[in-house]
Amino acid sequence: MSKPVSMYAPIPMVAGPVTLHPDVIEAIARDYGSGQIEPDFLPLYKETAGKLAGLMGTDDDVVLMTGEGMLALWGALKSCLKRGDAVLTVGTGVFGDGMADMAESMGCKVTKVSLPYDSTIGNGDSLAQIEAAIKRCRPVMITAVHCETPSGTLNPLAELGAMKQRLGVPLLCVDAVASLGGASIDAKAWNIDLVMAGSQKCLSAPPTMSIVSVSPTAWDIMANVNYQGYDAILPFKTIYKDGRCPYTPSWHGVAALHAAADALLREGLEAAFARHAIVAKQCREGLARIGVPVFPRPDAVSAPTVTAAMVPEKYTWPAWRQALRERGLIVSGSFGPMAGKVFRLGHMGTQADPILMQKALAAVEDALR
Amino acid sequence: MSKPVSMYAPIPMVAGPVTLHPDVIEAIARDYGSGQIEPDFLPLYKETAGKLAGLMGTDDDVVLMTGEGMLALWGALKSCLKRGDAVLTVGTGVFGDGMADMAESMGCKVTKVSLPYDSTIGNGDSLAQIEAAIKRCRPVMITAVHCETPSGTLNPLAELGAMKQRLGVPLLCVDAVASLGGASIDAKAWNIDLVMAGSQKCLSAPPTMSIVSVSPTAWDIMANVNYQGYDAILPFKTIYKDGRCPYTPSWHGVAALHAAADALLREGLEAAFARHAIVAKQCREGLARIGVPVFPRPDAVSAPTVTAAMVPEKYTWPAWRQALRERGLIVSGSFGPMAGKVFRLGHMGTQADPILMQKALAAVEDALR
Repeated sequence: MSKPVSMYAPIPMVAGPVTLHPDVIEAIARDYGSGQIEPDFLPLYKETAGKLAGLMGTDDDVVLMTGEGMLALWGALKSCLKRGDAVLTVGTGVFGDGMADMAESMGCKVTKVSLPYDSTIGNGDSLAQIEAAIKRCRPVMITAVHCETPSGTLNPLAELGAMKQRLGVPLLCVDAVASLGGASIDAKAWNIDLVMAGSQKCLSAPPTMSIVSVSPTAWDIMANVNYQGYDAILPFKTIYKDGRCPYTPSWHGVAALHAAADALLREGLEAAFARHAIVAKQCREGLARIGVPVFPRPDAVSAPTVTAAMVPEKYTWPAWRQALRERGLIVSGSFGPMAGKVFRLGHMGTQADPILMQKALAAVEDALR
Repeated sequence: MSKPVSMYAPIPMVAGPVTLHPDVIEAIARDYGSGQIEPDFLPLYKETAGKLAGLMGTDDDVVLMTGEGMLALWGALKSCLKRGDAVLTVGTGVFGDGMADMAESMGCKVTKVSLPYDSTIGNGDSLAQIEAAIKRCRPVMITAVHCETPSGTLNPLAELGAMKQRLGVPLLCVDAVASLGGASIDAKAWNIDLVMAGSQKCLSAPPTMSIVSVSPTAWDIMANVNYQGYDAILPFKTIYKDGRCPYTPSWHGVAALHAAADALLREGLEAAFARHAIVAKQCREGLARIGVPVFPRPDAVSAPTVTAAMVPEKYTWPAWRQALRERGLIVSGSFGPMAGKVFRLGHMGTQADPILMQKALAAVEDALR
């Protein structure tokens, strides 16, 4: 099958859903049997989950649920937390702080360490702030975001994970929606109990699947909480116990993830991560050359999967977006306090491609002329 | 594109996910842009929702969410009900009674009218029982199931809807997962506030999309409850208000539903319903001829989309399933009290096909020889 080209843009550089991998299109372009009946489905599910565990750097169980990435986030919180539980959210951007809103809506006692959106964990005295907050609120769970897409940053998590372990916090829950497959994740070494991800970012699949790794501690806590709902993760334990699926599984969704993970493993994880890092560097250096400043402060860690840059001063965001679109380049805007000021180039998955980035930079340069 | 044939069975007659419609495969076998960015997506969403509203017999807003059909069920309950709310569940099968378990897990005060699983609403004194229960518990919501798949029955809902209206119950919430597109639904005439459906039954699409119609009363109640979660329906109101999508929408999922609804509308709804009814009759009469009794009692309404029949006495269920599979016929088992005793032929969507049914009946006959 030939390389899929978006009908919508010659230069698709959105922060997801990204252009599909050709193998993913091939996997979804067909009929399957019933995932509840055919004996081929469960082995595919388990094999896919295992490949994704490899991408996460864990040997914990991995659960695949039908729904957009937010399903993984809600599922992890609701499955592990009861009303009144203390939660510490670490935010360096819209999604990190958004976890606080989610936990608050569930009636949890939330302590929020909200760091500047252009920084990453480790900048300034952020680790000391987090440590003090943990000692103060004694949380059941710490939440953090690996790649903060709207800010274009990647949070280092090793020290946070070590702190979690040292201070005896039961759970560390990490949103890796925009990093899984594009950046190294070492869930085991970083003591992450729940890695949450989605299909439509670095995996280059449609936005139909949620992925969550579950540590033994997380399974125990889930069994105790016994939350029920579409986003409940505990029912998926039966897949590992007795091969029974809760609900009707999406064979297409699992097949898409299988093809996506396979493509990454065939390339080699180190090679894939290097490709993302190289294209990200190309993007940052190219923008600097053109005179477009990036959003994160210089000592923050830039994301290898997405670059957040400043909308040029002589443009409004809608006019800038339109100027780029007229040159075939589709980019994303940003959210929260950065909305209207920051635009984003998503170079993840199939879009982490040096030729595509070259075209994107040429379009940016031309629009600025 | 040629008619898709399941690799898994020459005669796929499962109760869903059914064999995909060729137009659906064509719709999902491609790359799309970002549903949050490209101007083509929202018109497609709204047009698809409108077509599905037509299938439901309503002009209420219809919401399309990414997830398996159970997402529609959980979403409707959690979006409309608060802890302590009185709910009346009407069950003539596993799914109808299952709604009681779901509402109970949410802390609602549940009154359960559980009718025999081989009957349908209207049999015996069922309507009097329901009326008495409504007067006793004064529910915020009545739940019912249109097609009770595990029982192979279709509940008449006109009288229940009239009763709901007459007694001033705010909400009637109907699971139409296994009937939408295969049987006439007149949500407006039947006073249904929430019709809940999924993509993988009569619509012949993969199990990735949930569909819910929302009456003005239901929107008001949702705004008051203000439930938050992946399955929250209220955030989808913004699509109709200001064109903003909550979360990342699935363009593939919506395109699949669009193709599915289009195929049904092209055939003509009356013709499609007639096709289902004819194949269902062919199934019941064929089984009677062979000597396989159907499960519902004679005065119950049989489903036009699925037939539940008794596993022949000389077979265990696994042996019967295997005997049919050896003849190329894949059927479904049943759940709850019917598990092991009842098997099901799903003749919905693409599988409501007289030739396929002829092959299925020949396989059953051969297995019994």
